[in-house]
Amino acid sequence: MSTPRVGIIMGSDSDLPVMQAAADFLDTQDIAYELTIVSAHRTPERMIDYANSAHERGLQVIIAGAGGAAHLPGMVASLTPLPVIGVPVLSRNSIDGWDSILSILQMPSGIPVATVALDGAKNAGILAARILGSSDKAIQDKMIAYKTELREKVEEKIRKIESQ
Amino acid sequence: MSTPRVGIIMGSDSDLPVMQAAADFLDTQDIAYELTIVSAHRTPERMIDYANSAHERGLQVIIAGAGGAAHLPGMVASLTPLPVIGVPVLSRNSIDGWDSILSILQMPSGIPVATVALDGAKNAGILAARILGSSDKAIQDKMIAYKTELREKVEEKIRKIESQ
Amino acid sequence: MSTPRVGIIMGSDSDLPVMQAAADFLDTQDIAYELTIVSAHRTPERMIDYANSAHERGLQVIIAGAGGAAHLPGMVASLTPLPVIGVPVLSRNSIDGWDSILSILQMPSGIPVATVALDGAKNAGILAARILGSSDKAIQDKMIAYKTELREKVEEKIRKIESQ
Amino acid sequence: MSTPRVGIIMGSDSDLPVMQAAADFLDTQDIAYELTIVSAHRTPERMIDYANSAHERGLQVIIAGAGGAAHLPGMVASLTPLPVIGVPVLSRNSIDGWDSILSILQMPSGIPVATVALDGAKNAGILAARILGSSDKAIQDKMIAYKTELREKVEEKIRKIESQ
Amino acid sequence: MSTPRVGIIMGSDSDLPVMQAAADFLDTQDIAYELTIVSAHRTPERMIDYANSAHERGLQVIIAGAGGAAHLPGMVASLTPLPVIGVPVLSRNSIDGWDSILSILQMPSGIPVATVALDGAKNAGILAARILGSSDKAIQDKMIAYKTELREKVEEKIRKIESQ
Amino acid sequence: MSTPRVGIIMGSDSDLPVMQAAADFLDTQDIAYELTIVSAHRTPERMIDYANSAHERGLQVIIAGAGGAAHLPGMVASLTPLPVIGVPVLSRNSIDGWDSILSILQMPSGIPVATVALDGAKNAGILAARILGSSDKAIQDKMIAYKTELREKVEEKIRKIESQ
Amino acid sequence: MSTPRVGIIMGSDSDLPVMQAAADFLDTQDIAYELTIVSAHRTPERMIDYANSAHERGLQVIIAGAGGAAHLPGMVASLTPLPVIGVPVLSRNSIDGWDSILSILQMPSGIPVATVALDGAKNAGILAARILGSSDKAIQDKMIAYKTELREKVEEKIRKIESQ
Amino acid sequence: MSTPRVGIIMGSDSDLPVMQAAADFLDTQDIAYELTIVSAHRTPERMIDYANSAHERGLQVIIAGAGGAAHLPGMVASLTPLPVIGVPVLSRNSIDGWDSILSILQMPSGIPVATVALDGAKNAGILAARILGSSDKAIQDKMIAYKTELREKVEEKIRKIESQ
Repeated sequence: MSTPRVGIIMGSDSDLPVMQAAADFLDTQDIAYELTIVSAHRTPERMIDYANSAHERGLQVIIAGAGGAAHLPGMVASLTPLPVIGVPVLSRNSIDGWDSILSILQMPSGIPVATVALDGAKNAGILAARILGSSDKAIQDKMIAYKTELREKVEEKIRKIESQ
Repeated sequence: MSTPRVGIIMGSDSDLPVMQAAADFLDTQDIAYELTIVSAHRTPERMIDYANSAHERGLQVIIAGAGGAAHLPGMVASLTPLPVIGVPVLSRNSIDGWDSILSILQMPSGIPVATVALDGAKNAGILAARILGSSDKAIQDKMIAYKTELREKVEEKIRKIESQ
Repeated sequence: MSTPRVGIIMGSDSDLPVMQAAADFLDTQDIAYELTIVSAHRTPERMIDYANSAHERGLQVIIAGAGGAAHLPGMVASLTPLPVIGVPVLSRNSIDGWDSILSILQMPSGIPVATVALDGAKNAGILAARILGSSDKAIQDKMIAYKTELREKVEEKIRKIESQ
Repeated sequence: MSTPRVGIIMGSDSDLPVMQAAADFLDTQDIAYELTIVSAHRTPERMIDYANSAHERGLQVIIAGAGGAAHLPGMVASLTPLPVIGVPVLSRNSIDGWDSILSILQMPSGIPVATVALDGAKNAGILAARILGSSDKAIQDKMIAYKTELREKVEEKIRKIESQ
Repeated sequence: MSTPRVGIIMGSDSDLPVMQAAADFLDTQDIAYELTIVSAHRTPERMIDYANSAHERGLQVIIAGAGGAAHLPGMVASLTPLPVIGVPVLSRNSIDGWDSILSILQMPSGIPVATVALDGAKNAGILAARILGSSDKAIQDKMIAYKTELREKVEEKIRKIESQ
Repeated sequence: MSTPRVGIIMGSDSDLPVMQAAADFLDTQDIAYELTIVSAHRTPERMIDYANSAHERGLQVIIAGAGGAAHLPGMVASLTPLPVIGVPVLSRNSIDGWDSILSILQMPSGIPVATVALDGAKNAGILAARILGSSDKAIQDKMIAYKTELREKVEEKIRKIESQ
Repeated sequence: MSTPRVGIIMGSDSDLPVMQAAADFLDTQDIAYELTIVSAHRTPERMIDYANSAHERGLQVIIAGAGGAAHLPGMVASLTPLPVIGVPVLSRNSIDGWDSILSILQMPSGIPVATVALDGAKNAGILAARILGSSDKAIQDKMIAYKTELREKVEEKIRKIESQ
Repeated sequence: MSTPRVGIIMGSDSDLPVMQAAADFLDTQDIAYELTIVSAHRTPERMIDYANSAHERGLQVIIAGAGGAAHLPGMVASLTPLPVIGVPVLSRNSIDGWDSILSILQMPSGIPVATVALDGAKNAGILAARILGSSDKAIQDKMIAYKTELREKVEEKIRKIESQ
């Protein structure tokens, strides 16, 4: 497999069922990625190593998912110069997801996190591809093709619903 | 001026005092951008033209700010293959900003918007620079330098507070 | 079937189980309607065509349902001179419905959407009938009769509960 | 003055500064209206008389504004067969407007209220005009012209911002 | 059965499973009550008759339960001089109960509703008994005894938990 | 002055500007009351003495106001057999009043608090008068007269607004 | 068993399934505790006795869990000089936990409660151990060891996920 | 000055006006503390050094204040074995404080933060003193005396209000 261009990390293996969707999308677009667990609270040193070295290892985008008081995306964003996409995960004992959304979205001036919707890991994968595509014509063309696909799927459903 | 790499758009000129911060940051990093008004609700045709042609005109990232039921970032994201950064603007009659945050953040599967904090236009500018930097070493180096700057400013404040 | 007077549209076929209630009500009142899928984000061109031509094709009211960051009702309202009724749909991964409510309700000055309750598609159908009835005596009389029906159903329940 | 086609009512004279915007818009479109105070809680009998007779007196749409536990729009909607537009007013001691929004929007099945944005009285006026326009070609043409006006105002601002 | 002193009303028979708890408590205290359906939106005339005559028929307290945009408690309070206890009911399609709570609680100056917790019908029954007890020594004594009962039940549980 | 029938208490003298409205209303109705500070958190013993003896000293209703994590109304209600009216006060550092509303309203089964609107001290006074009036014809007649007053004040405003 | 150093109390036995996690953690660290029911609303005298005597009986920390309008942690904190840890419990009829969180967290100046996450009883146990550890080297060493354990468990999961 | 027992840290000097209250309280109790700026996002390495060495340098409690997506308290808690008190600060562009509250409070299992009220820095200072007092009789006695002071201040206000 080629060098990963996207790093997908999450705070806990309980986030994997949600976060897998980011990996799955990148698979369909043949974009190389790596996927692992990095916990801001339980493995802080590992988080720092991961974030500090990410751009040196060739990663171009980091996708970070976490639930509750979700500090992983913001902390990684404070350590790396790469764009970081944050996925708020609806964890057990979450207050309807508000906690993870706000603790990822409301970053202070200087340290942005590109936040996507609650449990929006697939969109995080798409956003990563769009970011790569902004300087990689082949990927951008795939993103254009993907939008056509989306439209055609809806058109198929329209035909079905209108022929009833 | 060189060809703009970032497009900064907003739904209304009342959003300009907030959105200017994105432009100001890009100025400090010598990243060329264009800035204009594109209203999803009042100039829908213009929005479509803008979004459809953005990547052809050389733009690599779009920053879109809007308040209330903020449809501009999401609609532009549905039309362009570029990464779109959404800035929820706290407008008059907003319900504490919840309306613009949720109508930008909670995009359906397939159409991501990279949402930043309420009135977080400066962070949108930084995120755009990080995105460009992910394939442009010179800009990435500037982003690393910028992080050093942030750190040094805090260290300066630490010296002041500790010497009191 | 006669020319449709009401257009019922929704962002996805997953909204159909909710939105069907609008159609069902119009059926009971013999008001002609059309029902289809129009996605603001996946079929933006179709949305524009639909909204631009709606009043020319004889439609008098549009009912638009969508979930999450729900842009369909507002975008259609920005393109048509017709009254647009917005139905916030409680979609999967919604934050308790707040996202769809606020992104439909909080429209900027100039572009109103007549918002009904969360999953309130039946009420959207009734509101469409009331709108038609405001200039069509026959439909208005049906609306008066419908109110009587509602009252009589409650009176029936009162008799049952009081005779226990 | 001609027979009013739109009734604008509000729960208290403290709502007038907000609700006046609905009347002002109708004035610009030469649509006859009446404006008065009808309090669900302080003049319930008057509310019933007003709502029961509205369609007989020639009104075609009712706009009702109220704050806090706002019962006026829903109660009027339960008594009249006309379409009722509800305007949540941000009153003193309101909890950021949530109280008026939810007590107007979340009507039970059978009794719709066409809710607009918080303090959205101007949009209520526009919605009333769109409703009249759905069966009155002259008003519909004005609504089309109004949309053009909105667009042109934005285009004027675009020229200004782009020439800076 | 003796003349009812408490009237228990609700907007719909779907509220009965919740509201029954108020009646059950009054039964245990031998306080006469009546229970029926009164819909603010579907039987407004009946609501007015009920509320206007309540104090003349000997009722001393009214308990009113409703869900969603819950107007029954407030409207009844505007018509009767009696104390009205409002029970916010968590209905289907409610937004986590916020709608019924706020539309019952946030009454305007002049028309109070004594609001209890979400689905708090039993507490409404206890509050009605406390109100009667404030001028009826026999009932007040029962309320004192009831508090003793509550304490003893907890003490029983304490013994159980501490002996484990 | 005659024996107080209503006790008005509050957690802090900073609540007095809000709570005074309850006293003012009772003054207009010639209902004797006492007003003092009782802090659940700073004078817990005093709170217990006050609440335990209230009904023995002739009080028939207690009005308790507090802000933030507002425990006074609920704690007093747990100690007295009297009806307790809770007034959520919007204090400094409150989160828009949600904290005081929820910590007064959401009492557990067995211990009701009659909650009124945020800063609704005047309504608390009216509710206390209605409670007394439920067994005191003279006060009930005053409450009926008060409702007439409210109506007449609105009618006066209607004349003014309609004559413009 | 040695003298308890931590008191774990809860408002009702229905809180036990949540609160047990605090006890379980202390068991694993061999820290002596007592666990019982103390209801602010149903056994106020017992609460006062418990809180007043806690520090005299050798307790060093109190953990108090409660749901809804949760007054136990704050009331106990007002009576004892010990640090009190509050656990908001998601009870039946709670409004998503907001009621217990806000009525525990938003304590007035002078009376702090150390609030942990919704249903966060295990964290309450850990916090109690950290508090004891701040002056007890043996316990602090255990807390350091516990953090290592947490890290090692994550590292184990990392190996599993990366070897897939 | 003696060795600091409490470390007061904050993410930015803009938090100082709020956080100073913690220091002021400790001053009144003659408890030695240190106060400085430690930014999770701008000086992550400094944060790690500070947190890792805190218990070795003799600190027994850490008070950490931060606003918005407030990661400092939780990150410090993940690195130190000491009890960490988190103060949610209402920063500029905060969404009414919800962001800082939830990102401090909703910590995952294993890493507790003792959260106090919004802008509750004084209570953080008191909580720190109570924690020290749990194993230091002299400080505990001061805490008992402080509670007496609070009570006496209220009693003074009672005399004033009752003598009016």
